[in-house]
Amino acid sequence: MQLADLFAERARNARPFEWEPEPEGDIVSLAYGLADPALFPREELIEAAAQAAAANGSRLLNYASPDSMLIDQILAHLQQQGVAAERKQLLLGSGSSELLNVLPLVLVEPGDAVIIEAPTFLGAVNRFKASGAKLLGVPVGPEGMDLDALEAILQTLRADGRRAKFIYAIPTFQNPTGTTMPLANRERLVALAAAYGTLIVEDDAYGELRFRGEHLPPLAALSNDWVLRVSTFSKILAPGLRLGYAHGPLAVIERLAAFKTSGSGGPFLTGMVARYCADGRLDAHIAELRALYARKCDAMIAAIEQEFPKEIRYVKPDGGFFVWCTLPAGMSARALASHALECGAEILPGPSCYADGSGDDSFRLSFSFQPEDRIVEGIRRLGRAIRGMM
Amino acid sequence: MQLADLFAERARNARPFEWEPEPEGDIVSLAYGLADPALFPREELIEAAAQAAAANGSRLLNYASPDSMLIDQILAHLQQQGVAAERKQLLLGSGSSELLNVLPLVLVEPGDAVIIEAPTFLGAVNRFKASGAKLLGVPVGPEGMDLDALEAILQTLRADGRRAKFIYAIPTFQNPTGTTMPLANRERLVALAAAYGTLIVEDDAYGELRFRGEHLPPLAALSNDWVLRVSTFSKILAPGLRLGYAHGPLAVIERLAAFKTSGSGGPFLTGMVARYCADGRLDAHIAELRALYARKCDAMIAAIEQEFPKEIRYVKPDGGFFVWCTLPAGMSARALASHALECGAEILPGPSCYADGSGDDSFRLSFSFQPEDRIVEGIRRLGRAIRGMM
Repeated sequence: MQLADLFAERARNARPFEWEPEPEGDIVSLAYGLADPALFPREELIEAAAQAAAANGSRLLNYASPDSMLIDQILAHLQQQGVAAERKQLLLGSGSSELLNVLPLVLVEPGDAVIIEAPTFLGAVNRFKASGAKLLGVPVGPEGMDLDALEAILQTLRADGRRAKFIYAIPTFQNPTGTTMPLANRERLVALAAAYGTLIVEDDAYGELRFRGEHLPPLAALSNDWVLRVSTFSKILAPGLRLGYAHGPLAVIERLAAFKTSGSGGPFLTGMVARYCADGRLDAHIAELRALYARKCDAMIAAIEQEFPKEIRYVKPDGGFFVWCTLPAGMSARALASHALECGAEILPGPSCYADGSGDDSFRLSFSFQPEDRIVEGIRRLGRAIRGMM
Repeated sequence: MQLADLFAERARNARPFEWEPEPEGDIVSLAYGLADPALFPREELIEAAAQAAAANGSRLLNYASPDSMLIDQILAHLQQQGVAAERKQLLLGSGSSELLNVLPLVLVEPGDAVIIEAPTFLGAVNRFKASGAKLLGVPVGPEGMDLDALEAILQTLRADGRRAKFIYAIPTFQNPTGTTMPLANRERLVALAAAYGTLIVEDDAYGELRFRGEHLPPLAALSNDWVLRVSTFSKILAPGLRLGYAHGPLAVIERLAAFKTSGSGGPFLTGMVARYCADGRLDAHIAELRALYARKCDAMIAAIEQEFPKEIRYVKPDGGFFVWCTLPAGMSARALASHALECGAEILPGPSCYADGSGDDSFRLSFSFQPEDRIVEGIRRLGRAIRGMM
């Protein structure tokens, strides 16, 4: 008798996601959105952990719900952003990725329509796909998702008597394109969601990291009824803590909580982060991060201007982690990625950002992880790789 | 248009699990298996966090896989227990509960047979039930699961051309009965699993906390092929860290990893726990815990002998957190639980430990959380409640 006979149908061919973002040898990786370790507030985090253990360790080190101090801080922060969320409308997760991973269990049955951006963050979308969703891509332009194309899809679905289960959007400093949706488009997007009865899943991982231009409200500030927003401490504090959150319609939050398998969040972790965030310390830290990432973005743009052939187009972002580049006709980003590795640089080729595997004319660069001098060196190597292929 | 129309069938009536183990007023709760905060190694954990941040913070605070130092420690510990697990056969989780919660996604389709102990730990079993499993209960006696009853169920299934998807067993200091399966029974249990082609899921949360008697090998040491074992740092370090692990057949571990939504474990948490565990510190801590819980168990037993009517039978455990009590015919544990609260004591009535809601003749007491004097006071109040009902 075989053990394998015991697996449920859904698990028979399941394989774990594996990701090890550490290339070997002297490679400058500009591929992944890792945080810059230079500004991890190590000592302050340890102090915060010590404070949490001293003040409330009996509870926070035991079985317990998340620290209410952190819940209060997040709710206050949401209020500043114009989002009126109640306590029960907020759910913590092991990074926002956990909450995005649970989402299909709540919303998707095989064959259901889910609208995504093209390109987008496949880390989330691959789980939507694994749940059997039929993914419908909407092109992303300089103003984010193309809303005319979106409305056409919504109309086609309606003509078929169907509704999209949700629209997965990254409206601010989009991953991978770096583009941001203007206010008028945000208003139209939430109006479309309400008119067509579909949920917007707003992934707002990068919204706090604006280098220039005016702050825009998250979609969640424009609709109480049709927006589930997920956000995270990964980009503004440290990804390795694994702390994110979702807020939105109570019926969705309750169901996410029901299907979440990891429990109610690490009590000790929430207590530690709460004490770190107290007294405006997180806000001050975010201001430092903005300045750091702005400098690194500028360094990358300057290096691109200097090192890349003029035929390479790119999007200069107002925030976030990424610069999106487009190759001239006939050049393959996949081929460039291989050649770049030989030249000592790593990029994320476009097909790793399109659910249908298209996008071989484009690639993503991240300026978040490498120090400035390595960014410049990486772009230099990449410029050499590009010129070698032209 | 209604948001609720968007939910997948499985989520339509889903409700989050809610648990808040803090009774109000002057109540001595003996109901829940909380750890004793007196021995949380607060300062040592903070030191370990500081060491992790200093030595490897760039990696552990970033996106990363779990700290390999911890993986090595767990594998070495398994080897000491006679379990030959390879690195890829080990998976970390947010407590062992996460791994037990993910299990039905890998193994269960609606209507599938899953064998459980009666009574058992419903925190895990409720998730099996929610997945549509048909739960088949095997009585637990003084030597753990009744293996004749188990074999009868396996035979009946085989006669129907079916196999149980798994057997959920807590063979050591069982929750809730405190009983331990002798070696000969362990050998017969794994032989039955192999003969009938079903997976044993061994929940070994309490195995390290033995007060007396001889150490017994976990089931996982007796079979490489048919045992998935889950264990946790919750009882031997601190539940609020949320760190557990599973090991067993690679095909099962890979699929658990594929359906796990919370990612690869908090890198920082794994680094912190690894540094705490180094140099034999965890082993020394476990020795202290054993002595502490042994004293508290003895205090509870002595108080029971003094305060409870002789008609109440109880099981004296050799380890773990619990004392299981049985009421004389005609008395209801649910009624006792209500009356006990009025007398200032909280118990877990038997029906909270039986998947079919039976067991109203029994209740679980935990000596893990309360200090000794409160245990004695709680048993005194409970004795008064019992006598008031007889």
